[in-house]
Amino acid sequence: MNKPVTRRSGGRDARRALRRAPLAQDLRPIRAGLAGGTYKPLSDIDVLRIHRAALDALEQIGLADAPQSGIDAMTKAGATLGDDGRLRFPRALVEDMLDLAAKEITLFSRDGKNDLELSGNRVHYGTAGAAVHLVDPEHNDYRDCTVQDLFDAAKIANTLDNVHFFQRPMVCRDIVDNYEMDLNTIYACARGTTKHIGTSFSDPSYVDGALKFVYEIAGGEDKFRARPFISNTNCFVVPPMKFATESSEAMEKCIHGGMPILLLSAGQSGATAPASIAGAIVQAVAECLAGIVYVNSIAPGHPAIFGTWPFVSDLRTGAMSGGSGEQALLTAGCAQMHKYYGIPGGAAAGIADSKLPDMQAGYEQAQSNVMAGLAGLNMVYESVGMHASLLGFCLESMIIGNDMLGQALRAVRGIDVSEDNLSIETMRSVCEDGPGHYLGSEQTLNLMQTEYVYPEIADRSSPKEWMENQKPLLLTQAIKAKRRILSNQSSAEFPPELDAALRKMVKIHLD
Amino acid sequence: MNKPVTRRSGGRDARRALRRAPLAQDLRPIRAGLAGGTYKPLSDIDVLRIHRAALDALEQIGLADAPQSGIDAMTKAGATLGDDGRLRFPRALVEDMLDLAAKEITLFSRDGKNDLELSGNRVHYGTAGAAVHLVDPEHNDYRDCTVQDLFDAAKIANTLDNVHFFQRPMVCRDIVDNYEMDLNTIYACARGTTKHIGTSFSDPSYVDGALKFVYEIAGGEDKFRARPFISNTNCFVVPPMKFATESSEAMEKCIHGGMPILLLSAGQSGATAPASIAGAIVQAVAECLAGIVYVNSIAPGHPAIFGTWPFVSDLRTGAMSGGSGEQALLTAGCAQMHKYYGIPGGAAAGIADSKLPDMQAGYEQAQSNVMAGLAGLNMVYESVGMHASLLGFCLESMIIGNDMLGQALRAVRGIDVSEDNLSIETMRSVCEDGPGHYLGSEQTLNLMQTEYVYPEIADRSSPKEWMENQKPLLLTQAIKAKRRILSNQSSAEFPPELDAALRKMVKIHLD
Repeated sequence: MNKPVTRRSGGRDARRALRRAPLAQDLRPIRAGLAGGTYKPLSDIDVLRIHRAALDALEQIGLADAPQSGIDAMTKAGATLGDDGRLRFPRALVEDMLDLAAKEITLFSRDGKNDLELSGNRVHYGTAGAAVHLVDPEHNDYRDCTVQDLFDAAKIANTLDNVHFFQRPMVCRDIVDNYEMDLNTIYACARGTTKHIGTSFSDPSYVDGALKFVYEIAGGEDKFRARPFISNTNCFVVPPMKFATESSEAMEKCIHGGMPILLLSAGQSGATAPASIAGAIVQAVAECLAGIVYVNSIAPGHPAIFGTWPFVSDLRTGAMSGGSGEQALLTAGCAQMHKYYGIPGGAAAGIADSKLPDMQAGYEQAQSNVMAGLAGLNMVYESVGMHASLLGFCLESMIIGNDMLGQALRAVRGIDVSEDNLSIETMRSVCEDGPGHYLGSEQTLNLMQTEYVYPEIADRSSPKEWMENQKPLLLTQAIKAKRRILSNQSSAEFPPELDAALRKMVKIHLD
Repeated sequence: MNKPVTRRSGGRDARRALRRAPLAQDLRPIRAGLAGGTYKPLSDIDVLRIHRAALDALEQIGLADAPQSGIDAMTKAGATLGDDGRLRFPRALVEDMLDLAAKEITLFSRDGKNDLELSGNRVHYGTAGAAVHLVDPEHNDYRDCTVQDLFDAAKIANTLDNVHFFQRPMVCRDIVDNYEMDLNTIYACARGTTKHIGTSFSDPSYVDGALKFVYEIAGGEDKFRARPFISNTNCFVVPPMKFATESSEAMEKCIHGGMPILLLSAGQSGATAPASIAGAIVQAVAECLAGIVYVNSIAPGHPAIFGTWPFVSDLRTGAMSGGSGEQALLTAGCAQMHKYYGIPGGAAAGIADSKLPDMQAGYEQAQSNVMAGLAGLNMVYESVGMHASLLGFCLESMIIGNDMLGQALRAVRGIDVSEDNLSIETMRSVCEDGPGHYLGSEQTLNLMQTEYVYPEIADRSSPKEWMENQKPLLLTQAIKAKRRILSNQSSAEFPPELDAALRKMVKIHLD
């Protein structure tokens, strides 16, 4: 049984020749924005119950700690401020603001080649996070990450087909001054990749300067406002149910500056969110609905992504854990809530608890990424490179993970049940008159590039080939690929004049 | 952002104490037979179209090469034998036989502790395959596998909670005589584990002797027939659309001997099955429907698992490849067809193309296992330990994979949206009066064991703890666990009298 067909010559040359021919973008089996939605962890009734519980929480518990500007805007829209300082939201207000909210959001790329259209079940994978360590698998070690690491990560992401956006995944720990850090983060990301960038600001007072910096990269404020290629990842709440006062102020400034917002609620079940998966989703949904009220009370229709990012605690220790089935369910359940509201949403998947890019990391990252994609999550954040429960980022892992995301995207694309694919005629000719196999059939040749994804770095050789090839290790291949990418100039590099202009605006810590 | 909550003392001792208490089996978050079905890669209409195409294929193309005994039984039931030697199946015959077919099947364990109830969306993970190599990750090497390796694998499977059955995953290549190999395979499996066993026979003439051997282990033919703890993995077809004459004869003997059958159709898309995913499913379904007709024309209601196992070819080379999104879709799509027929079914998932238990293996194995489980596949074969596109089996990988399956099972269990879990009251008390976090809340304590799965070997330590702990490698931990398990006696070991009796029946190649 299970005797694999190993090597056959029939049609092989033809297949090889075909494989060499480039394929039009729209014929490729996978690409950004494929539609998921075949996986629904919640029943329709469960979705409604979560929605109602979130409305109850907003009406009865509300959120504390809004800045005065936010209180003014939201009470004007219909929220009520209690004596306990908590802002409460009547159902009708939430529903009105959901009507106003942006339902289709384009996240622009700087060069127009990788714009992301967020709506429905369209799936996009990318990086995110605030790792404090670079994982060095060459030396089995962790060290503080730097602006150079961030630039390297951006350069690598720029070359990886299945990494669709680059939200800052790690913190530049070599830059002491926080203002410099924030602007250098933008500099390193944008110089490394033309894909859409996400970043955050340490202090609301930094936003004006950062916006000027971003406008300079865009070639002018009007150009940025027309195609904002950087969005603000904003932790506007401190779960449970409190606004993050300073981040909220930063958010207001970003909105006024024309920057899309990622409304990020990052509770941790059993610690800063309820321990039950359903309860953690309720709280995240309630918090993001408050964010929708906030944004739309200031600027109706401003692009804001519904960023329910509930995480998991290992309840034995209270420590964060991201590589579990519970995490995958949290994320997939949130995706379903986004559809219910019809608002583009994102959540975290692909987090490994493992410290290294090993088998544990592989299965941890795959499970949540696959489930997020099948659930039709628009923005799958932290999908690649993330280790140690978000504390470490790994460049080699990102390269290996690109293939993982390719296979996840293939699953998102799903099964094409067309008349042609049902194949009765092909089956008949093969069985009744033909060679008894499908290797050289026209259908096989037609489908080999449009139905099948071939990995870039993953090894599919036979044991015999693998041994003849000196038993290559996956990690060694990833290290080679990393060096090759980093030795090339990025297509995103700034023109010298722009680079000089940016260096006049702030001290740049990258050569 | 994303600052993980690391270490808190609140409630920690209480949680640790609770964690030490054993949990009743039915309260544990995961177990065999959890119900999937939340993922549906096919629409209802697509399911119907595949069904109809399969019926067309059976009626118009039919299957060649049935043995005379099978031709006799199936033509008596209503099949027609064409001049071309192909047996064709009218729709009404297929529908009648589907009515007769077993809808609920129990796969018994030898000790009654791990019986598997197959029906609906109930999911079970286990081993399977016919690997010819043992993967030795200690020395980064492949070697021929032996009966000792098979015994070791069975012993390990016996201790792994999330490996629910043990179908023979590798071939005893140190045994030259095929009859001895078949009986030693049974011996090694049954002496290693009391979980349900699957095996196959090289020649129909071996079945009588093998049945006697099995009855001896059971303590008598009547005991085996009452609780058959070994089933016959039967490749009754050679795709495309041909009966495997000798295997079919062996199947008939197994049916008469009281052994459940796994009707295994293992086509390879683009080689021995259509290159389109939908077409490969059609062919596998057609072949297994023919198997259902075959079994039920001989013994109505005899337990037979609908074993649609379509595999994927890497169409560039024609070689087998199992670690892809296409493979995961094939398997999940088949699971949906099993539900349509209401017949317990199985398919292959968890295959790594990677040669070693590395990150590639992790994501390859996780994707198809997770998708199979969410689709509600009753029997997930080859879910653990399988490398090199089925050519290599790895003991360490099986141990690491047990944790992977635990997280997949957690996802299968899904999200419990009960009133308690919606948590508004807990949220209110935490936010309005309480400590502002959920760490010590009653709900958290209640859910920590019933909602959360804790890995056995996977590492969730922080980078600091990991470094203090001398940066343990996952593989090293797996090797240690393997040695610990293998140094203990298996709970499945035969009593001396039984062992002696078995050794009189055939030369046993295991000490």
